[in-house]
Amino acid sequence: MTKVTIHDVAKNANVSPTTVSRVLNNRGYISEEMKKKVHDSIEELGFIPNQMARSLFTNQTKFIGLIIPTTANPFFGELTYYIEKSLSKLDYKLLICNSINESENEKQYLSMLQENRVDGIIVGSHNIDITEYDKMPLKMVSVERKINETIPTIQSDNYSGGYQATEELIKAGCQKILCVSGNPNLETPANDRYKAYQDCMTEYQLPTYSERIHFTDTNEQKAAKVEAIFNETPDYDGVFAGDDVIASIILAYALKKHIKVPESLKVVGFDGTDLTQTILPHLTTISQPIQELAEKSVEMLLAEIANQPVEKKVILPVTLLRKGTT
Amino acid sequence: MTKVTIHDVAKNANVSPTTVSRVLNNRGYISEEMKKKVHDSIEELGFIPNQMARSLFTNQTKFIGLIIPTTANPFFGELTYYIEKSLSKLDYKLLICNSINESENEKQYLSMLQENRVDGIIVGSHNIDITEYDKMPLKMVSVERKINETIPTIQSDNYSGGYQATEELIKAGCQKILCVSGNPNLETPANDRYKAYQDCMTEYQLPTYSERIHFTDTNEQKAAKVEAIFNETPDYDGVFAGDDVIASIILAYALKKHIKVPESLKVVGFDGTDLTQTILPHLTTISQPIQELAEKSVEMLLAEIANQPVEKKVILPVTLLRKGTT
Repeated sequence: MTKVTIHDVAKNANVSPTTVSRVLNNRGYISEEMKKKVHDSIEELGFIPNQMARSLFTNQTKFIGLIIPTTANPFFGELTYYIEKSLSKLDYKLLICNSINESENEKQYLSMLQENRVDGIIVGSHNIDITEYDKMPLKMVSVERKINETIPTIQSDNYSGGYQATEELIKAGCQKILCVSGNPNLETPANDRYKAYQDCMTEYQLPTYSERIHFTDTNEQKAAKVEAIFNETPDYDGVFAGDDVIASIILAYALKKHIKVPESLKVVGFDGTDLTQTILPHLTTISQPIQELAEKSVEMLLAEIANQPVEKKVILPVTLLRKGTT
Repeated sequence: MTKVTIHDVAKNANVSPTTVSRVLNNRGYISEEMKKKVHDSIEELGFIPNQMARSLFTNQTKFIGLIIPTTANPFFGELTYYIEKSLSKLDYKLLICNSINESENEKQYLSMLQENRVDGIIVGSHNIDITEYDKMPLKMVSVERKINETIPTIQSDNYSGGYQATEELIKAGCQKILCVSGNPNLETPANDRYKAYQDCMTEYQLPTYSERIHFTDTNEQKAAKVEAIFNETPDYDGVFAGDDVIASIILAYALKKHIKVPESLKVVGFDGTDLTQTILPHLTTISQPIQELAEKSVEMLLAEIANQPVEKKVILPVTLLRKGTT
């Protein structure tokens, strides 16, 4: 099958290739009659416009890069879904980059996205020390991750979520509440959850306990860490888990060890994805507005691309879903 | 910031733009000395090659399209992760298309991928009647989905998995076993699971019972359907669920209704993703080789692109993970 070119379309319509190009790119004055001739010829020959070639003229590719840890995580799987849906409605295309545990790889992704002239990047990565972001001339926004002072951030109200989760456990009668959180060296807004836990415990004059489980650990490593935590301190009666996956690992541990939930151990998760709420409908958790995070990040990035003013920090509200584990 | 062009690089290196282009595209004879001069100039000026422009010369974009129902599903979230990882190692980039419940949208995705001159497409979509695939001049492979006779398919051994799942329930003592499967009008290899269930039940001289829950239903719709099934027939003592999400919905229903698992009800799932095995470590399931499915689909697509011979159908083995629900 021979590819139909712009020259074939022009010849068939009895116009110049420049005219066809103008119609395709909507540039310069073209009469309605001429437009119709070109479009009829395109349809007749089955011509497929080459967006790659077109992007060289229009100076925009309509490609957006998304750098996240991994689509295999339910929060990022849902975020990716909603971001792609929002972009696709506006004729933008999404290039996906899974950066988990590979900061070297993340640097390569940044070069790749630049070389492919993406119009902008949405970042939700969890690697540290990517100084390359400071030098990037590209339009960017970040989701649930603070990169630097200049890149706008969209995040959940992690502080409020952390406070609500902790207070839920206290009001349910817990005395010895553990807070499990992520990598403290990483500047994620999620660290506000830990700060809120501390503030809430102090307010209620209760002692604080904290453990770290890195987001980038494998699920097997996370399970081993949970086991180690409870081996050392079996008498926690409440846990504010870093996310729903960690909450589910704690629930599985409790089931295995015949620890009654919520009687002997109460658990609150974080994220509240559609998937984890389906699989674990009895898990009390703080639900993040994932669809809104996605839509807002797309809206802000496109405003950046259009050189419109953009807020530096947008915080969206979270909701406590009170279920069977508290 | 002014963009550095190929002309700036050429001028700075004191060579012609054609020479720079040849070095970048690795075409024609260029002496080592000349290569060094060009590369030094590129580095000195901070020139970023434009892959879009390059693709017009090389006639390959190194873009691959992936059409799947949604990254929010754990099977497809993990599949996407492994496909992107495999492609990225070979300098290919992944354009993601979530096609769930939108066959119109899927047609637009196909046009979009063609217009953006992707080198090939991996399809794992769950929409029906996309006749557009038959006309597509692009290289394609499909994962867990039969599109037509010409597009190579990579799939799990769904028949063996279905047989093992059913036999597991029979051997655990179940007498009234329900099989929940997906859309029968859709030609997915997953339909082999149902066929295997029927064959196994017939072999053991047991009556068959089947219900359909569409993959594309929302999780809420799936939960309502599970409730309706058990309201009508409360005495099933075994369920071979269509996938782990449906299995988890059945387990949640059993928990709510105080039906003891595995004493009164035994359940076997399908997929065995890392995530569902983490959240539900007690779920007996058939584990699909997701990483291998991803790597094999990339390998086969790249072979197609290179015009090498490709098998029309590749079936990868599955594993029964015997856990606490049987």
